[in-house]
Amino acid sequence: MAHTIREIAAAIGAEAAGDLDLTVARAAEPKMAAADALALAMDPKYAGGLAEGQAVAALLWAGADWQGLGLKAAIFAPRGRLAMAGLSVLFDAGPEIAAGVHVLSVVHPDAVIGAGASVGPFVTIGRGVRIGARARIASHVSVAEGAVIGEDALILQGVRIGARVTIGDRFIAQPGAVVGSDGFSFVTPEKSGVEEIRETLGERGEIRAQSWSRIHSLGGVTIGDDVELGANVCIDRGTIRDTVIGSGTKLDNLVHVGHNVQIGRDCLLCGQVGVAGSARIGDRVVLAGQCGVNDNIFVGDDVIAGGATKIFTNAPAGRVLLGYPAVKMETHVEIQKALRRLPRLAVRVGELEKTVTERLPDAG
Amino acid sequence: MAHTIREIAAAIGAEAAGDLDLTVARAAEPKMAAADALALAMDPKYAGGLAEGQAVAALLWAGADWQGLGLKAAIFAPRGRLAMAGLSVLFDAGPEIAAGVHVLSVVHPDAVIGAGASVGPFVTIGRGVRIGARARIASHVSVAEGAVIGEDALILQGVRIGARVTIGDRFIAQPGAVVGSDGFSFVTPEKSGVEEIRETLGERGEIRAQSWSRIHSLGGVTIGDDVELGANVCIDRGTIRDTVIGSGTKLDNLVHVGHNVQIGRDCLLCGQVGVAGSARIGDRVVLAGQCGVNDNIFVGDDVIAGGATKIFTNAPAGRVLLGYPAVKMETHVEIQKALRRLPRLAVRVGELEKTVTERLPDAG
Amino acid sequence: MAHTIREIAAAIGAEAAGDLDLTVARAAEPKMAAADALALAMDPKYAGGLAEGQAVAALLWAGADWQGLGLKAAIFAPRGRLAMAGLSVLFDAGPEIAAGVHVLSVVHPDAVIGAGASVGPFVTIGRGVRIGARARIASHVSVAEGAVIGEDALILQGVRIGARVTIGDRFIAQPGAVVGSDGFSFVTPEKSGVEEIRETLGERGEIRAQSWSRIHSLGGVTIGDDVELGANVCIDRGTIRDTVIGSGTKLDNLVHVGHNVQIGRDCLLCGQVGVAGSARIGDRVVLAGQCGVNDNIFVGDDVIAGGATKIFTNAPAGRVLLGYPAVKMETHVEIQKALRRLPRLAVRVGELEKTVTERLPDAG
Repeated sequence: MAHTIREIAAAIGAEAAGDLDLTVARAAEPKMAAADALALAMDPKYAGGLAEGQAVAALLWAGADWQGLGLKAAIFAPRGRLAMAGLSVLFDAGPEIAAGVHVLSVVHPDAVIGAGASVGPFVTIGRGVRIGARARIASHVSVAEGAVIGEDALILQGVRIGARVTIGDRFIAQPGAVVGSDGFSFVTPEKSGVEEIRETLGERGEIRAQSWSRIHSLGGVTIGDDVELGANVCIDRGTIRDTVIGSGTKLDNLVHVGHNVQIGRDCLLCGQVGVAGSARIGDRVVLAGQCGVNDNIFVGDDVIAGGATKIFTNAPAGRVLLGYPAVKMETHVEIQKALRRLPRLAVRVGELEKTVTERLPDAG
Repeated sequence: MAHTIREIAAAIGAEAAGDLDLTVARAAEPKMAAADALALAMDPKYAGGLAEGQAVAALLWAGADWQGLGLKAAIFAPRGRLAMAGLSVLFDAGPEIAAGVHVLSVVHPDAVIGAGASVGPFVTIGRGVRIGARARIASHVSVAEGAVIGEDALILQGVRIGARVTIGDRFIAQPGAVVGSDGFSFVTPEKSGVEEIRETLGERGEIRAQSWSRIHSLGGVTIGDDVELGANVCIDRGTIRDTVIGSGTKLDNLVHVGHNVQIGRDCLLCGQVGVAGSARIGDRVVLAGQCGVNDNIFVGDDVIAGGATKIFTNAPAGRVLLGYPAVKMETHVEIQKALRRLPRLAVRVGELEKTVTERLPDAG
Repeated sequence: MAHTIREIAAAIGAEAAGDLDLTVARAAEPKMAAADALALAMDPKYAGGLAEGQAVAALLWAGADWQGLGLKAAIFAPRGRLAMAGLSVLFDAGPEIAAGVHVLSVVHPDAVIGAGASVGPFVTIGRGVRIGARARIASHVSVAEGAVIGEDALILQGVRIGARVTIGDRFIAQPGAVVGSDGFSFVTPEKSGVEEIRETLGERGEIRAQSWSRIHSLGGVTIGDDVELGANVCIDRGTIRDTVIGSGTKLDNLVHVGHNVQIGRDCLLCGQVGVAGSARIGDRVVLAGQCGVNDNIFVGDDVIAGGATKIFTNAPAGRVLLGYPAVKMETHVEIQKALRRLPRLAVRVGELEKTVTERLPDAG
């Protein structure tokens, strides 16, 4: 995986200087960099690390004095993390999955697997499945009957793709992700306690025994292009129509998406986010780790929610949210400040009451 | 999977009208319904959608004017979601698992698999396992030594059933669920910091280095009848006696149940709920998504907790809870209202102090 | 697995009395104990249970009158749970994994598997993998190319070990744990909304469409000795350097550890804890269930956080935390008390204002 400085600069669309034919075999942090590494020093604060490490080539901030830093070659990254993205593609060897379909896999004769695909051992592919060209499917994956997956998929170990799932191109799924589990949808013969308190906001009448009848998920899951799912993610099928994940959206590890949920394009759902059934989420929404979205609500385009925000009600487009329950981030900050002063405030009110009572003795 | 209107009405115990011999092949939302579909319009608000779709038969609200809606046949559902439950059973083809035991499975010769069971590829079934009649076990499942599973189980891809697990009839497990992992139980030679602050509510003495000795889980897991587990659920074994999940209880995706936990009958634990070790939960308890239950506490029968409620202390039967920490839902609503006014309240107190100080100049 | 009282006392380093040659086959709770069981009654409150059960030997509190309790033999445990740890090792038969490498596994010819290791069916072990002596690897596990695992590992069903993962001795992984998934790291060409609000604490300028470029994870995961991972845990690889888990640290079910995270030694992360990318956690930190740690922050040595604490900012060593956002536990308790009185406080302020306005009529 060695590349010249010239190749790297071209691949990431950046300027370079010095010995452009110099070859590097890996990327590294400046002070841990070996002589064959490209040191990543996209901010002046890493300049010191360059001296500690062995690298003679580096990815530097725009305008850096590469010669003064003792380097033989440099690439300049006006936006460091963006350069990292391009660079990381170059140096990622990807998982080793042998070409072709492993003999210890069970592929239904009706299934269609695209040209150039690799399928590892202990994989099952069901009746009528269609998988696009150049798919890489690691060991222990199951793809159930009728599922359709686009081109250039990378599906890692133990991923479960259920029946009635349709996925676009360039899909990535980390180990253990589940797409197409049944929705969590149950109903009682009589009105349940949950239905009752939703109407009364907490008041309950007579409590009766109740057991749950299962509503089977007849719908599926539709996933757009360029979607990535983290490890052990769970996405349920819809009840009648499909659960939908829009193109460009990324889900981190252990995210839960309930039945009928609609998520727009280019969203980020970070680790352990949960989206309850039938919620709708717009485009470019970012939910930080451990956020929760209530069932049947709508979260508008471009909403950003901070860590562990619990969204109980509709959120308008562009809103920045924080807290349990979610409020505008600025409101949350203001409330938290007031909260820390609350015990003192209570004391002050007590003192005022004492003063007023003493000084205005017939008050009240 | 085509059914006549007569068959469907009989199966869900509902009245029907019109051409009862009309056949439908699927269920669909009114405006997306093809001509061979039964449109689901259990509320007058969906009446408009019927005109947009192609369906000539529908599941309607009680008393609907089906002829006025242009239909040839109708079924009337006094409780729509309950009708959906029955209907969804009829139209769910279920997963395709070939009859018999797949040749690429590893079944211990001592294991007993009931009549009519289907076992998919890459399944392992250990010594002494007993699985009831008509079980459907999808690919990649492991059932460890001595586990007992009742009749009519549906165990989906990659589910892990550990040793010392006993499960009743009609069990359903979504992909990746784990039953019978070891409990998270560790002890330090000396009193640990955690033990100390539980006694002092936060005060700590001298902090010492400490490492953890493992308490192995010698108990198992006992699960009743009609239990369903969502994708990637985790249920730990008990330390000495079993962790218990009562009949009729349903767990959604990514729920965590710690060692020794006792959960009653007909409960619903929604997505990402966590129940810490040795907690006890009564019957018919409903915990919304992301709720947490502290270790060693008791949650009474019929408790309902809203999204992300964190229950730190015992909850009496019938209580409706919300918040972190959990309080009565009505208290939570009241506190939240007051909180939003808190910054303004602080200003008002400041103004009062100013007034009192100025007007009662020798106050305080 | 029968042991004499003498053997058990010696194994756990405790005093014993009575018939030391008496043999017990299992451990049990006092009132459920059969005649061949060692009853666990490490606290006087369990004395009554002894009379209900059949046991003639028991693990008792220090100084207990074992003869008065009708026993033939007793072991005395000055620290009951510590004795349980030792005892549980003796009585845990461990999972049944046949010696040698199962014929239905796929082991790369370059991989080195230590002496005395057991590898179950449907396991894949990649190129260049090294696994230490006496490893026990259950069915359906995958170990990707180049991973290194120390001696005496116990890796349960369906665990995923990715490429570039290095693990020490005595590693335990419960079913479904994933080590070495790719980090959740994406960047937009222009400054993203998330970057903007981190600077402004909530204020946003013009909202633009943006899509995400993937930063591949070139780093790996380094795990020390004596680490245990719960079921369905997820640990991401680092971007450039490794994600690190220190020796002696234990992670419970469904814990999420993001890319580049550094966790110290002897920590406990309980069920469903989430640690966002690049956070650093010291030694002996205990995070109760559902805690969250923000990205890029530092949690000092010996910090203890109560259930569902959300840590947004650096936490100094030894701090005891609770709440969302995390505050000192004593501050949280004080704020919660004040909060419950807040609606009443608001009423009192209103009354004060009325009094002051009426009695000091030209006030304000």
